[in-house]
Amino acid sequence: MRLLYHLPLSPYSRKVRLVLAEKRLPFELRVEKVWQRRPEYLELNPAATVPTMVEDNGLVIPDSGVICEYLDEAYPDTNLLGRTIGERVEVRRLVNWFGSKFATEVMRNLLWEKTMKQMQGLGAPEAGALRAGYANIKHHLTYIGWLAEHRKWLAGANLSLADFTAAAFLSSLDFIGDVDWAAAPSAKDWYARMKSRPSFRAILADRVTGMAPPPHYSDLDF
Amino acid sequence: MRLLYHLPLSPYSRKVRLVLAEKRLPFELRVEKVWQRRPEYLELNPAATVPTMVEDNGLVIPDSGVICEYLDEAYPDTNLLGRTIGERVEVRRLVNWFGSKFATEVMRNLLWEKTMKQMQGLGAPEAGALRAGYANIKHHLTYIGWLAEHRKWLAGANLSLADFTAAAFLSSLDFIGDVDWAAAPSAKDWYARMKSRPSFRAILADRVTGMAPPPHYSDLDF
Repeated sequence: MRLLYHLPLSPYSRKVRLVLAEKRLPFELRVEKVWQRRPEYLELNPAATVPTMVEDNGLVIPDSGVICEYLDEAYPDTNLLGRTIGERVEVRRLVNWFGSKFATEVMRNLLWEKTMKQMQGLGAPEAGALRAGYANIKHHLTYIGWLAEHRKWLAGANLSLADFTAAAFLSSLDFIGDVDWAAAPSAKDWYARMKSRPSFRAILADRVTGMAPPPHYSDLDF
Repeated sequence: MRLLYHLPLSPYSRKVRLVLAEKRLPFELRVEKVWQRRPEYLELNPAATVPTMVEDNGLVIPDSGVICEYLDEAYPDTNLLGRTIGERVEVRRLVNWFGSKFATEVMRNLLWEKTMKQMQGLGAPEAGALRAGYANIKHHLTYIGWLAEHRKWLAGANLSLADFTAAAFLSSLDFIGDVDWAAAPSAKDWYARMKSRPSFRAILADRVTGMAPPPHYSDLDF
């Protein structure tokens, strides 16, 4: 069985879980506490990040970006990167927007500070980082809302990896109660559509020891 | 004429310049001081990063990662992402290794602190960052050397985007004199091969107001 090393709150792992589910590719999850730097895991992925996927034939694929490109090449039936050259540019632009800009400005300041940092015993969240994170997420929700108002899906007429990337990132933040949906109605409408997809069920069922998500986290009518 | 908005020392811009030159696609360079946040540029690339490429037909492609995927799809004759599924996984893994791990551990601490930060009037380099950057680059040069010793090119038997990414990043660091080649002979041998390619000539001719690269920067027998 295809294996995915992951962490429940890792937005990059969630993105790959969504893509695998959309493509109806079965997989087994295995939690990898990357900060323990397990030598067997470093051999699979020297960057010591999650996710890493291992295919049935033994092919090891580290890094969510590499995995998603691979999955669209190896299993093209459910196309998530876009069909025309122009579509693919816009899908990848938004995927990288979340993977770099949103990751640095929001995820690093909120999810990292409030969960990953503490799991690794690196101390309490820094007030300045949290302040920056809460300020930045507002602008990003406005941008997502703007895209959702002007297009059927975030990157255009078709559901794509851009939607799954954005939804994966927001779902991790929503688990820790850091998304103010009331202030972002258009982003909320789009997220409600994403959340009701069957591929999202496993994400909404995630639970983490010692942490309780807010009641609306798994509620489809939030 | 195809247009590339860039900054001379941006490793991401250099990567795209190398790929365009390898594919023999003519282009014109235009410097974009991204920190000025020029509204016309933000319309092309709301992330306000370089590079952004504008094709003759008007297609706007921001982000070096998106540009390189686009170029291999639109102009496949000189293949740089690998031909087999396995090759493509390893090429993209290394491309992302430089774009995330090397970028955070080395580029951010050295190139950003010593050049970009000052260009933008954000103050002098931080001693702690420089210390971390110099410590980290040693490990990365060892890794590059290890790859170069065990394989013909960094990702395997074929010259690929992994080589051009690594060479672009190192060329920017070499411009500011931060690569201790004497301590990394295998990485140096590989870099000498990259440096002697015709696609590298324009990079080696780059000059920046107020900064002088070390004499070995453009010397092919360094």
